[in-house]
Amino acid sequence: MCMLKFITSNEHKYLEVSVAFEKVGLPLSWYRKKYEEIQADDNAVICRDSCIKLGKDIEQPFFIDDTGLYIEQLNGFPGPYASYVQDTIGNTGIIKLASGSNAYFKTVISLMQDNKVQQFTGILKGTIADKENNGNKFGYDPIFIPDGYDLALSQLSPAEKNLISHRGKAINNLINFLILNNIR
Amino acid sequence: MCMLKFITSNEHKYLEVSVAFEKVGLPLSWYRKKYEEIQADDNAVICRDSCIKLGKDIEQPFFIDDTGLYIEQLNGFPGPYASYVQDTIGNTGIIKLASGSNAYFKTVISLMQDNKVQQFTGILKGTIADKENNGNKFGYDPIFIPDGYDLALSQLSPAEKNLISHRGKAINNLINFLILNNIR
Repeated sequence: MCMLKFITSNEHKYLEVSVAFEKVGLPLSWYRKKYEEIQADDNAVICRDSCIKLGKDIEQPFFIDDTGLYIEQLNGFPGPYASYVQDTIGNTGIIKLASGSNAYFKTVISLMQDNKVQQFTGILKGTIADKENNGNKFGYDPIFIPDGYDLALSQLSPAEKNLISHRGKAINNLINFLILNNIR
Repeated sequence: MCMLKFITSNEHKYLEVSVAFEKVGLPLSWYRKKYEEIQADDNAVICRDSCIKLGKDIEQPFFIDDTGLYIEQLNGFPGPYASYVQDTIGNTGIIKLASGSNAYFKTVISLMQDNKVQQFTGILKGTIADKENNGNKFGYDPIFIPDGYDLALSQLSPAEKNLISHRGKAINNLINFLILNNIR
Protein backbone atom coordinates (compact mmCIF):
# COMPACT_ATOMS: atom_id res chain seq x y z
CA MET A 1 0.00 0.00 0.00
CA CYS A 2 1.15 3.55 -0.73
CA MET A 3 2.17 5.95 2.01
CA LEU A 4 -0.67 7.86 3.62
CA LYS A 5 -1.08 11.38 2.15
CA PHE A 6 -2.57 14.53 3.64
CA ILE A 7 -4.15 16.59 0.85
CA THR A 8 -4.16 20.31 1.66
CA SER A 9 -3.04 23.54 0.06
CA ASN A 10 -1.92 24.78 3.50
CA GLU A 11 1.69 24.11 4.42
CA HIS A 12 1.16 25.04 8.09
CA LYS A 13 -1.58 22.48 8.45
CA TYR A 14 0.67 19.79 7.03
CA LEU A 15 3.47 20.76 9.40
CA GLU A 16 1.15 20.66 12.42
CA VAL A 17 -0.31 17.29 11.49
CA SER A 18 3.02 15.74 10.54
CA VAL A 19 4.43 16.62 13.98
CA ALA A 20 1.63 14.63 15.60
CA PHE A 21 2.29 11.70 13.25
CA GLU A 22 6.01 11.84 13.90
CA LYS A 23 5.46 11.57 17.67
CA VAL A 24 3.87 8.14 17.24
CA GLY A 25 6.22 7.03 14.47
CA LEU A 26 3.72 7.16 11.62
CA PRO A 27 4.93 8.40 8.20
CA LEU A 28 2.87 11.03 6.39
CA SER A 29 3.38 12.67 3.02
CA TRP A 30 1.97 15.97 1.79
CA TYR A 31 0.06 16.36 -1.46
CA ARG A 32 -0.32 20.10 -2.01
CA LYS A 33 -3.59 20.65 -3.79
CA LYS A 34 -6.57 23.02 -3.73
CA TYR A 35 -9.88 21.35 -4.45
CA GLU A 36 -13.46 22.48 -4.89
CA GLU A 37 -15.94 22.19 -2.05
CA ILE A 38 -19.72 22.06 -2.33
CA GLN A 39 -22.07 24.28 -0.35
CA ALA A 40 -23.84 22.61 2.59
CA ASP A 41 -24.77 23.58 6.16
CA ASP A 42 -22.50 20.99 7.81
CA ASN A 43 -18.76 20.76 7.16
CA ALA A 44 -18.89 16.98 7.69
CA VAL A 45 -21.10 16.72 4.59
CA ILE A 46 -18.74 18.94 2.58
CA CYS A 47 -15.62 17.07 3.70
CA ARG A 48 -17.11 13.65 2.85
CA ASP A 49 -18.16 14.89 -0.58
CA SER A 50 -14.70 16.32 -1.38
CA CYS A 51 -13.08 13.10 -0.20
CA ILE A 52 -15.22 10.94 -2.49
CA LYS A 53 -14.54 13.20 -5.47
CA LEU A 54 -10.78 13.29 -4.81
CA GLY A 55 -10.81 9.49 -4.44
CA LYS A 56 -11.71 9.11 -8.12
CA ASP A 57 -8.41 10.60 -9.26
CA ILE A 58 -5.91 10.32 -6.44
CA GLU A 59 -4.00 7.31 -5.22
CA GLN A 60 -5.32 6.05 -1.87
CA PRO A 61 -4.99 6.16 1.12
CA PHE A 62 -5.27 9.90 1.82
CA PHE A 63 -7.15 12.25 4.10
CA ILE A 64 -8.40 15.85 4.07
CA ASP A 65 -9.69 18.09 6.83
CA ASP A 66 -12.16 20.92 7.22
CA THR A 67 -13.07 23.16 10.15
CA GLY A 68 -16.30 25.06 10.82
CA LEU A 69 -17.40 27.50 13.53
CA TYR A 70 -21.00 27.16 14.72
CA ILE A 71 -22.46 30.04 16.77
CA GLU A 72 -25.61 29.11 18.66
CA GLN A 73 -27.21 32.56 18.72
CA LEU A 74 -26.76 32.85 14.93
CA ASN A 75 -28.37 29.51 14.05
CA GLY A 76 -25.02 27.90 13.36
CA PHE A 77 -23.57 30.76 11.25
CA PRO A 78 -20.85 30.95 9.91
CA GLY A 79 -20.67 27.11 9.94
CA PRO A 80 -18.64 25.75 7.02
CA TYR A 81 -18.14 29.27 5.64
CA ALA A 82 -15.93 30.24 8.59
CA SER A 83 -12.97 31.18 6.43
CA TYR A 84 -15.02 33.19 3.88
CA VAL A 85 -16.71 35.05 6.74
CA GLN A 86 -13.35 35.69 8.44
CA ASP A 87 -12.12 37.28 5.18
CA THR A 88 -15.21 39.49 4.78
CA ILE A 89 -16.88 40.61 8.03
CA GLY A 90 -13.97 39.44 10.24
CA ASN A 91 -13.82 39.20 14.02
CA THR A 92 -15.30 42.67 14.53
CA GLY A 93 -18.40 41.60 12.59
CA ILE A 94 -18.78 38.42 14.65
CA ILE A 95 -18.44 40.39 17.92
CA LYS A 96 -21.20 42.78 16.78
CA LEU A 97 -23.50 39.88 15.95
CA ALA A 98 -22.84 37.36 18.67
CA SER A 99 -20.77 38.59 21.62
CA GLY A 100 -21.50 36.30 24.60
CA SER A 101 -23.06 33.50 22.57
CA ASN A 102 -22.17 29.83 22.95
CA ALA A 103 -20.24 28.48 19.99
CA TYR A 104 -18.15 25.51 18.92
CA PHE A 105 -15.45 24.68 16.43
CA LYS A 106 -15.77 21.39 14.58
CA THR A 107 -12.89 19.84 12.67
CA VAL A 108 -13.71 16.91 10.44
CA ILE A 109 -11.09 14.64 8.91
CA SER A 110 -12.17 12.37 6.06
CA LEU A 111 -9.93 9.39 5.38
CA MET A 112 -10.20 7.57 2.04
CA GLN A 113 -8.93 4.01 2.02
CA ASP A 114 -9.99 1.05 -0.14
CA ASN A 115 -12.64 3.33 -1.66
CA LYS A 116 -14.24 3.79 1.76
CA VAL A 117 -14.57 7.07 3.66
CA GLN A 118 -14.05 7.15 7.44
CA GLN A 119 -14.64 10.39 9.34
CA PHE A 120 -13.01 11.66 12.53
CA THR A 121 -14.27 14.66 14.45
CA GLY A 122 -12.94 17.05 17.07
CA ILE A 123 -15.09 19.63 18.82
CA LEU A 124 -14.11 22.57 21.02
CA LYS A 125 -16.89 24.38 22.88
CA GLY A 126 -16.64 27.96 24.08
CA THR A 127 -18.05 31.49 24.04
CA ILE A 128 -17.67 34.46 21.70
CA ALA A 129 -15.70 37.24 23.45
CA ASP A 130 -16.78 40.89 23.60
CA LYS A 131 -13.47 42.13 22.18
CA GLU A 132 -10.46 40.91 20.22
CA ASN A 133 -7.85 39.52 22.56
CA ASN A 134 -4.10 39.53 22.16
CA GLY A 135 -1.83 36.68 21.26
CA ASN A 136 -1.64 34.59 18.11
CA LYS A 137 -3.88 36.42 15.63
CA PHE A 138 -4.96 33.27 13.80
CA GLY A 139 -8.56 33.35 12.51
CA TYR A 140 -11.21 33.41 15.21
CA ASP A 141 -8.77 32.51 18.02
CA PRO A 142 -8.71 36.08 19.49
CA ILE A 143 -12.50 36.08 20.02
CA PHE A 144 -13.04 32.47 21.14
CA ILE A 145 -12.93 31.68 24.88
CA PRO A 146 -12.79 27.89 25.35
CA ASP A 147 -15.06 26.50 28.10
CA GLY A 148 -13.17 26.30 31.39
CA TYR A 149 -10.74 29.09 30.43
CA ASP A 150 -10.64 32.85 31.09
CA LEU A 151 -8.33 33.40 28.13
CA ALA A 152 -9.00 33.41 24.41
CA LEU A 153 -7.66 30.59 22.26
CA SER A 154 -5.13 33.09 20.85
CA GLN A 155 -3.64 33.55 24.34
CA LEU A 156 -2.87 29.87 25.00
CA SER A 157 0.55 28.41 24.22
CA PRO A 158 0.67 26.31 21.01
CA ALA A 159 1.15 23.16 23.10
CA GLU A 160 -1.85 23.94 25.29
CA LYS A 161 -3.97 24.83 22.27
CA ASN A 162 -3.11 21.57 20.48
CA LEU A 163 -4.09 19.63 23.58
CA ILE A 164 -7.64 20.99 23.71
CA SER A 165 -8.25 22.10 20.14
CA HIS A 166 -10.83 20.71 17.74
CA ARG A 167 -8.11 19.99 15.16
CA GLY A 168 -5.88 18.34 17.78
CA LYS A 169 -8.73 16.05 18.86
CA ALA A 170 -9.65 15.10 15.30
CA ILE A 171 -6.02 14.29 14.50
CA ASN A 172 -5.76 12.13 17.63
CA ASN A 173 -8.90 10.24 16.67
CA LEU A 174 -7.43 9.61 13.22
CA ILE A 175 -4.09 8.49 14.63
CA ASN A 176 -5.75 6.10 17.11
CA PHE A 177 -7.71 4.54 14.26
CA LEU A 178 -4.60 4.14 12.10
CA ILE A 179 -2.67 2.50 14.94
CA LEU A 180 -5.55 0.22 15.93
CA ASN A 181 -5.97 -0.95 12.34
CA ASN A 182 -2.26 -1.11 11.68
CA ILE A 183 -2.49 1.32 8.75
CA ARG A 184 0.71 3.10 7.82
CA MET B 1 -34.11 20.66 -30.85
CA CYS B 2 -35.83 20.03 -27.52
CA MET B 3 -37.86 22.69 -25.76
CA LEU B 4 -35.84 25.06 -23.56
CA LYS B 5 -35.94 24.04 -19.86
CA PHE B 6 -35.47 26.11 -16.71
CA ILE B 7 -33.86 23.92 -14.03
CA THR B 8 -34.81 25.05 -10.52
CA SER B 9 -36.27 23.56 -7.38
CA ASN B 10 -38.26 26.76 -6.85
CA GLU B 11 -41.76 26.80 -8.32
CA HIS B 12 -42.17 30.56 -7.81
CA LYS B 13 -39.05 31.28 -9.82
CA TYR B 14 -40.35 29.17 -12.69
CA LEU B 15 -43.71 30.96 -12.60
CA GLU B 16 -42.05 34.39 -12.64
CA VAL B 17 -39.76 33.50 -15.52
CA SER B 18 -42.44 31.69 -17.54
CA VAL B 19 -44.65 34.80 -17.42
CA ALA B 20 -41.83 36.81 -19.03
CA PHE B 21 -41.39 34.11 -21.70
CA GLU B 22 -45.12 33.95 -22.37
CA LYS B 23 -45.25 37.70 -23.03
CA VAL B 24 -42.91 37.32 -26.00
CA GLY B 25 -44.37 34.01 -27.17
CA LEU B 26 -41.44 31.78 -26.17
CA PRO B 27 -42.21 28.32 -24.74
CA LEU B 28 -40.46 27.26 -21.53
CA SER B 29 -40.65 24.01 -19.59
CA TRP B 30 -39.76 23.43 -15.93
CA TYR B 31 -37.36 20.72 -14.76
CA ARG B 32 -37.71 20.62 -10.97
CA LYS B 33 -34.35 19.65 -9.57
CA LYS B 34 -32.04 20.59 -6.71
CA TYR B 35 -28.37 20.45 -7.59
CA GLU B 36 -25.09 20.91 -5.75
CA GLU B 37 -23.20 24.18 -5.94
CA ILE B 38 -19.50 24.73 -5.31
CA GLN B 39 -18.10 27.37 -2.96
CA ALA B 40 -16.63 30.46 -4.65
CA ASP B 41 -16.64 34.21 -4.01
CA ASP B 42 -18.58 35.09 -7.19
CA ASN B 43 -21.98 33.63 -8.01
CA ALA B 44 -21.14 33.82 -11.75
CA VAL B 45 -18.38 31.25 -11.17
CA ILE B 46 -20.73 29.00 -9.20
CA CYS B 47 -23.52 29.23 -11.74
CA ARG B 48 -21.21 28.41 -14.67
CA ASP B 49 -19.79 25.41 -12.81
CA SER B 50 -23.25 24.03 -11.97
CA CYS B 51 -24.35 24.53 -15.57
CA ILE B 52 -21.40 22.58 -16.96
CA LYS B 53 -21.95 19.72 -14.49
CA LEU B 54 -25.70 19.56 -15.21
CA GLY B 55 -24.92 19.58 -18.95
CA LYS B 56 -23.27 16.17 -18.64
CA ASP B 57 -26.53 14.47 -17.68
CA ILE B 58 -29.41 16.65 -18.80
CA GLU B 59 -30.81 17.13 -22.28
CA GLN B 60 -29.94 20.58 -23.69
CA PRO B 61 -30.86 23.42 -24.04
CA PHE B 62 -31.54 24.51 -20.46
CA PHE B 63 -30.69 27.34 -18.11
CA ILE B 64 -30.25 27.91 -14.38
CA ASP B 65 -30.03 31.08 -12.31
CA ASP B 66 -28.35 32.26 -9.15
CA THR B 67 -28.52 35.52 -7.19
CA GLY B 68 -25.95 37.05 -4.82
CA LEU B 69 -25.93 40.14 -2.60
CA TYR B 70 -22.64 42.04 -2.42
CA ILE B 71 -22.25 44.61 0.38
CA GLU B 72 -19.38 47.06 -0.19
CA GLN B 73 -18.61 47.78 3.47
CA LEU B 74 -18.38 44.03 4.19
CA ASN B 75 -15.95 43.20 1.36
CA GLY B 76 -18.70 41.66 -0.74
CA PHE B 77 -20.28 39.57 2.04
CA PRO B 78 -22.66 37.68 1.89
CA GLY B 79 -22.02 37.33 -1.87
CA PRO B 80 -23.11 33.92 -3.19
CA TYR B 81 -24.09 32.80 0.33
CA ALA B 82 -26.98 35.28 0.45
CA SER B 83 -29.59 32.62 1.10
CA TYR B 84 -27.57 30.78 3.79
CA VAL B 85 -26.90 34.11 5.54
CA GLN B 86 -30.57 35.10 5.28
CA ASP B 87 -31.48 31.82 7.04
CA THR B 88 -28.91 32.30 9.84
CA ILE B 89 -28.18 35.91 10.80
CA GLY B 90 -31.11 37.33 8.80
CA ASN B 91 -31.94 40.94 8.03
CA THR B 92 -31.36 42.07 11.62
CA GLY B 93 -27.79 40.77 11.42
CA ILE B 94 -27.15 42.56 8.12
CA ILE B 95 -28.53 45.85 9.53
CA LYS B 96 -26.17 45.56 12.54
CA LEU B 97 -23.19 44.97 10.26
CA ALA B 98 -23.80 47.23 7.31
CA SER B 99 -26.60 49.76 7.73
CA GLY B 100 -26.01 52.61 5.24
CA SER B 101 -23.52 50.70 3.08
CA ASN B 102 -23.67 50.54 -0.71
CA ALA B 103 -24.66 47.12 -1.99
CA TYR B 104 -25.83 45.37 -5.13
CA PHE B 105 -27.77 42.28 -6.10
CA LYS B 106 -26.41 40.25 -8.99
CA THR B 107 -28.48 37.62 -10.78
CA VAL B 108 -26.63 35.36 -13.18
CA ILE B 109 -28.36 33.09 -15.68
CA SER B 110 -26.29 30.34 -17.31
CA LEU B 111 -27.66 28.92 -20.54
CA MET B 112 -26.35 25.58 -21.80
CA GLN B 113 -26.81 24.96 -25.51
CA ASP B 114 -24.75 22.82 -27.91
CA ASN B 115 -22.39 22.12 -24.98
CA LYS B 116 -21.62 25.84 -24.67
CA VAL B 117 -22.38 28.06 -21.67
CA GLN B 118 -23.63 31.63 -22.21
CA GLN B 119 -24.13 33.89 -19.21
CA PHE B 120 -26.59 36.77 -18.71
CA THR B 121 -26.39 39.17 -15.81
CA GLY B 122 -28.67 41.64 -14.09
CA ILE B 123 -27.51 44.05 -11.40
CA LEU B 124 -29.50 46.25 -9.02
CA LYS B 125 -27.57 48.82 -6.97
CA GLY B 126 -28.79 50.28 -3.72
CA THR B 127 -28.19 50.88 -0.02
CA ILE B 128 -28.73 48.79 3.12
CA ALA B 129 -31.53 50.31 5.22
CA ASP B 130 -31.30 51.03 8.95
CA LYS B 131 -34.49 49.06 9.73
CA GLU B 132 -36.72 46.39 8.24
CA ASN B 133 -39.38 47.98 6.08
CA ASN B 134 -42.90 46.77 5.43
CA GLY B 135 -44.29 45.13 2.34
CA ASN B 136 -43.44 41.84 0.70
CA LYS B 137 -41.19 40.08 3.24
CA PHE B 138 -39.11 38.25 0.61
CA GLY B 139 -35.43 37.80 1.54
CA TYR B 140 -33.44 41.02 1.75
CA ASP B 141 -36.13 43.13 0.03
CA PRO B 142 -37.23 44.87 3.29
CA ILE B 143 -33.70 46.19 3.93
CA PHE B 144 -32.63 47.06 0.37
CA ILE B 145 -33.28 50.60 -0.91
CA PRO B 146 -32.70 50.68 -4.68
CA ASP B 147 -30.76 53.70 -5.98
CA GLY B 148 -33.17 56.48 -6.97
CA TYR B 149 -35.90 55.28 -4.59
CA ASP B 150 -36.94 56.26 -1.05
CA LEU B 151 -38.68 52.92 -0.56
CA ALA B 152 -37.32 49.45 0.10
CA LEU B 153 -37.59 46.80 -2.62
CA SER B 154 -40.29 45.14 -0.47
CA GLN B 155 -42.48 48.25 -0.78
CA LEU B 156 -42.57 48.37 -4.58
CA SER B 157 -45.38 46.73 -6.55
CA PRO B 158 -44.44 43.39 -8.16
CA ALA B 159 -44.64 45.02 -11.61
CA GLU B 160 -42.35 47.88 -10.59
CA LYS B 161 -39.92 45.46 -8.92
CA ASN B 162 -39.73 43.25 -12.02
CA LEU B 163 -38.97 46.30 -14.14
CA ILE B 164 -35.87 47.31 -12.16
CA SER B 165 -34.84 44.08 -10.47
CA HIS B 166 -31.61 42.16 -11.03
CA ARG B 167 -33.57 39.00 -11.89
CA GLY B 168 -35.86 40.92 -14.25
CA LYS B 169 -32.87 42.39 -16.10
CA ALA B 170 -31.06 39.03 -16.38
CA ILE B 171 -34.23 37.40 -17.74
CA ASN B 172 -34.61 40.18 -20.32
CA ASN B 173 -31.01 39.75 -21.43
CA LEU B 174 -31.61 36.03 -21.86
CA ILE B 175 -34.86 36.57 -23.78
CA ASN B 176 -33.25 39.11 -26.12
CA PHE B 177 -30.47 36.64 -26.88
CA LEU B 178 -32.95 33.82 -27.56
CA ILE B 179 -35.00 35.99 -29.91
CA LEU B 180 -31.95 37.39 -31.73
CA ASN B 181 -30.59 33.90 -32.30
CA ASN B 182 -33.97 32.42 -33.08
CA ILE B 183 -33.72 29.84 -30.31
CA ARG B 184 -37.01 28.39 -29.06
